[in-house]
Amino acid sequence: MKVGIVMGSVSDYPVVERAEKVLKEFGVDYETRIISAHRTPRTAEKFATNAAADGLEVLIAAAGKAAHLGGVMAAFTPLPIIGLPIKSSTMDGLDSLLSMVQMPKGVPVAVVAIDGAENAGLLAVQILSLRYPELRERMIVYKKKMEEEINRMDEEFQKEKK
Amino acid sequence: MKVGIVMGSVSDYPVVERAEKVLKEFGVDYETRIISAHRTPRTAEKFATNAAADGLEVLIAAAGKAAHLGGVMAAFTPLPIIGLPIKSSTMDGLDSLLSMVQMPKGVPVAVVAIDGAENAGLLAVQILSLRYPELRERMIVYKKKMEEEINRMDEEFQKEKK
Amino acid sequence: MKVGIVMGSVSDYPVVERAEKVLKEFGVDYETRIISAHRTPRTAEKFATNAAADGLEVLIAAAGKAAHLGGVMAAFTPLPIIGLPIKSSTMDGLDSLLSMVQMPKGVPVAVVAIDGAENAGLLAVQILSLRYPELRERMIVYKKKMEEEINRMDEEFQKEKK
Amino acid sequence: MKVGIVMGSVSDYPVVERAEKVLKEFGVDYETRIISAHRTPRTAEKFATNAAADGLEVLIAAAGKAAHLGGVMAAFTPLPIIGLPIKSSTMDGLDSLLSMVQMPKGVPVAVVAIDGAENAGLLAVQILSLRYPELRERMIVYKKKMEEEINRMDEEFQKEKK
Amino acid sequence: MKVGIVMGSVSDYPVVERAEKVLKEFGVDYETRIISAHRTPRTAEKFATNAAADGLEVLIAAAGKAAHLGGVMAAFTPLPIIGLPIKSSTMDGLDSLLSMVQMPKGVPVAVVAIDGAENAGLLAVQILSLRYPELRERMIVYKKKMEEEINRMDEEFQKEKK
Amino acid sequence: MKVGIVMGSVSDYPVVERAEKVLKEFGVDYETRIISAHRTPRTAEKFATNAAADGLEVLIAAAGKAAHLGGVMAAFTPLPIIGLPIKSSTMDGLDSLLSMVQMPKGVPVAVVAIDGAENAGLLAVQILSLRYPELRERMIVYKKKMEEEINRMDEEFQKEKK
Amino acid sequence: MKVGIVMGSVSDYPVVERAEKVLKEFGVDYETRIISAHRTPRTAEKFATNAAADGLEVLIAAAGKAAHLGGVMAAFTPLPIIGLPIKSSTMDGLDSLLSMVQMPKGVPVAVVAIDGAENAGLLAVQILSLRYPELRERMIVYKKKMEEEINRMDEEFQKEKK
Amino acid sequence: MKVGIVMGSVSDYPVVERAEKVLKEFGVDYETRIISAHRTPRTAEKFATNAAADGLEVLIAAAGKAAHLGGVMAAFTPLPIIGLPIKSSTMDGLDSLLSMVQMPKGVPVAVVAIDGAENAGLLAVQILSLRYPELRERMIVYKKKMEEEINRMDEEFQKEKK
Repeated sequence: MKVGIVMGSVSDYPVVERAEKVLKEFGVDYETRIISAHRTPRTAEKFATNAAADGLEVLIAAAGKAAHLGGVMAAFTPLPIIGLPIKSSTMDGLDSLLSMVQMPKGVPVAVVAIDGAENAGLLAVQILSLRYPELRERMIVYKKKMEEEINRMDEEFQKEKK
Repeated sequence: MKVGIVMGSVSDYPVVERAEKVLKEFGVDYETRIISAHRTPRTAEKFATNAAADGLEVLIAAAGKAAHLGGVMAAFTPLPIIGLPIKSSTMDGLDSLLSMVQMPKGVPVAVVAIDGAENAGLLAVQILSLRYPELRERMIVYKKKMEEEINRMDEEFQKEKK
Repeated sequence: MKVGIVMGSVSDYPVVERAEKVLKEFGVDYETRIISAHRTPRTAEKFATNAAADGLEVLIAAAGKAAHLGGVMAAFTPLPIIGLPIKSSTMDGLDSLLSMVQMPKGVPVAVVAIDGAENAGLLAVQILSLRYPELRERMIVYKKKMEEEINRMDEEFQKEKK
Repeated sequence: MKVGIVMGSVSDYPVVERAEKVLKEFGVDYETRIISAHRTPRTAEKFATNAAADGLEVLIAAAGKAAHLGGVMAAFTPLPIIGLPIKSSTMDGLDSLLSMVQMPKGVPVAVVAIDGAENAGLLAVQILSLRYPELRERMIVYKKKMEEEINRMDEEFQKEKK
Repeated sequence: MKVGIVMGSVSDYPVVERAEKVLKEFGVDYETRIISAHRTPRTAEKFATNAAADGLEVLIAAAGKAAHLGGVMAAFTPLPIIGLPIKSSTMDGLDSLLSMVQMPKGVPVAVVAIDGAENAGLLAVQILSLRYPELRERMIVYKKKMEEEINRMDEEFQKEKK
Repeated sequence: MKVGIVMGSVSDYPVVERAEKVLKEFGVDYETRIISAHRTPRTAEKFATNAAADGLEVLIAAAGKAAHLGGVMAAFTPLPIIGLPIKSSTMDGLDSLLSMVQMPKGVPVAVVAIDGAENAGLLAVQILSLRYPELRERMIVYKKKMEEEINRMDEEFQKEKK
Repeated sequence: MKVGIVMGSVSDYPVVERAEKVLKEFGVDYETRIISAHRTPRTAEKFATNAAADGLEVLIAAAGKAAHLGGVMAAFTPLPIIGLPIKSSTMDGLDSLLSMVQMPKGVPVAVVAIDGAENAGLLAVQILSLRYPELRERMIVYKKKMEEEINRMDEEFQKEKK
Repeated sequence: MKVGIVMGSVSDYPVVERAEKVLKEFGVDYETRIISAHRTPRTAEKFATNAAADGLEVLIAAAGKAAHLGGVMAAFTPLPIIGLPIKSSTMDGLDSLLSMVQMPKGVPVAVVAIDGAENAGLLAVQILSLRYPELRERMIVYKKKMEEEINRMDEEFQKEKK
């Protein structure tokens, strides 16, 4: 099981890295590439066209501003694409969000929160878990842990306040 | 293979219906329910909690305004949730979009365009195709058909202009 | 007289603390909990369901991004819920505000300004004062003090300018 | 038990009427006035100043555009004020919403959804129920009915689809 | 000739000061007051009601968030009111701008740019110049100076580049 | 006493006409011109440059979209300019509003609500009243009438409801 | 001299047609194609790659929602690309505008107003006029005519008002 | 071949400089001026009117807030104008963007991303390349280099990760 991650620029990596961390945690293999929809369009096309044959099963596309990367990938592959809008220096990420989420009829991109890299990773895991039941199990455990963590955080908070 | 569709109100059905149509076209079974995150929270919880055991593999949550339905579902199931933001009478759907897409770390919702029901259906198919290779094949055919359709539309447009 | 405060994460506490301070000032008891609508949904449900029986009379829900906490609480209790939208790292709080305020027909949340924790506390006091006349008196005093404070600020400002 | 409703113009009444309907349903007395923060400021001041002495226990202020009515009321009374932002011919209600909800520290207004008149009514009931336990009971019944209604809507929808 | 300046809080003074500086430069007298529409409503009313009789001829109202100060002043005086929206910690000043500019029919506020204090001062001068022809002359000189300054800035820029 | 009104296109006249009506009501002379900042820039320049000498004392500039007309006028005259942003077919008037109100330091435009033509007229009257005391008197009467009108509207509303 | 026009769907034609009309008026040849960045990506790539060799000198890309068409074209050709954002059923064209205009460093798209098809045509003419001096002449005439037209509109308006 | 660059203030130069750098890289001559649409309107008019005769072939106008500079230039010249919206201290550049891009029918401005100075330069080069084929060649080389650079960045990223 393998996820393909593409980002428009190396400057997106500090955000994207958090998606990788989630995948690692779930034991999901991934490959991260720097591919630009506008500057390396042929690489983007080739990558998306071959993604399924290359063993990738879900793609994550991270991009900012006029964030076309997810849509361009989606044009060339039947794989599900997760769009991760990156906040840039202006517009607070609204441009990236709308550029990714408002895809026209026929070519969906599955968009998560602005800079929501962990959720991009978790969504990839949830999608993969249709095929890999062990991931479903790990996701159930993950959710339980998360619940316990918040509960513990609450308990500590109660103690501190006394 | 089966998709669970939930919508906050029957008034969302004219939009949601277009997602059903796509699923039908792909031969994917579905079950559509009217469930409100705020008015029938126990049904929502039960539905989401049992979804996997009930044979559902992907959920689509359609809601408008403060659209919590996707997030509430996501809290109770490890299944991937597709969020379909519905445009309501004010704010042009921006409220629904942000309420769905800006999910906190740990609990993703995969959001498509405002009123983008067809894409919610197609995304469900793409996700299911990880497990059902025949859907992958149909998706490839669908994309080809869509391409041909646009090409034919273009050809007819060229003829008409002459 | 007691207010229940819930926040989605401990990171919201620096804001929420200002609501506590107001309640303390008015002699109103409170209990602050870390509960996440999405990560500890069962705790959220239990907390809201039992809130009235546990002696809570008003709830304050503080959350950021797709801020569902107020709505989820509101689904399970007849108590009035005050929504305190928290500004997060993107969208300047507009996402939290819309996610809280645009509640569908039937399930209101009483929303105050983004990061407006003092006002969440004061609104709780105003609501409680329907039952506890002494709070009404204290609120009248508070408003007078506030008036005097601004007037004094103005006087000092006039002196400094001369 | 009595609610004071003020609206900036008679043109707001088709929306405001839905709040009255909710109050009637709950057996809550109300008085509806046309008062403008800017055109009849003295009436506004007098109304707010005397509201408590006149037996009003909660106020609802409905206004559009630069919707100052709630804030102006709040300046003159310790009663809780519910702000109902009205959508006007431009800006889709965002101007009314921000003008009402972004109140400065010290003077809260409890804002509900744009044109969300039913919720303004319900919030008034929830607040009154701190003092009138019968309203709490009715609210519990109301919520149950609402739940049953959605469930019935769902059942009918299931039948129709077969 | 005298301008009344009111600001909602002393924290607005660093911005407001720039309006004072412009008035000083034009030899226009002014009086600056800290008055809050919501916290000192009676002072606000009294100030606005007496403004004309007190010899004030134009008012500048500076406020942030739900910026009602200009509108509240406008309700009580026939004098022209200049609204100066102040950027606060959230919403980048859009809330202040809309709260000031979207005034209902009958009660105008003359709004300048967010944090545009110099322009508030200059607009006051332009308005006063209807009555005081010497101000018109100074404004013509001011505009010429401004023109020369930009031209000089351009010349220096050309030299530096060589 | 005379106001110069300029509008970017004859299509703005249905809105602008309401400003004329107000001026007529106050006995203020006016001259309305169709002048485009971008299509007849020389006329715009000439009009603004000569405005004061031609006996105009206040200008109203009505324009939509990238509404530069007010700013362009302001560049060529020391007279106060009132900006009336017109709602066009997209962006709900936000583009016109921001294009008019966000003027740079040194060149103010006094902006009223989107499509707020009556207020543009009233603001012109308020400004003129610095020089023409009879207008101040009429404005006081106007405000009283407006107050009475709202009060009467309220009375009728009370009767109808019984 | 020839302009290539591409639009994402035949439903954009009523807007795009107005660009064609301008080009015809200036005697500029054009070719209009229906090409979708997402549904016919290979056609898009081929069209853009061959555009220069096919004798096209400027491209106009019209698209709505997540409007990637301009950016995708720009990736494959050194020709200047004009982006024409189309208003769609939600978001009032803001999504199209931001998706087109916020292009990353290295790959510009020259964006005109939402639904501003005439301006897309005129911009194409202005660009072509670098090579074809007769177009520069026609543009000067066009601007003069436009000026005369507004002036005449103004004259007629003056007559009608008398 | 020569580009005219105008900016509203010297404070825009740190952004504008990046456009100059691009032009230098392509061997395109340029002249940069500080001209304000509102403070030096006569210089603006003269500059635009004479631009073509002075040998300029494309203009770049950089401005923030109510960014009228591009439109004012466009009014006086048949040359293509590139609008570069500058982010200022409020509104995140949305005001500049809308003030530039929403130009009325008849007078286009070719707008690039907020603070997108490199793209303003590149667009100028693309436009000039209609007349100067060597620029077309350099642009093709530039795009190739950019492609290689991203590819190399990707390769290095792959190495580092191992």
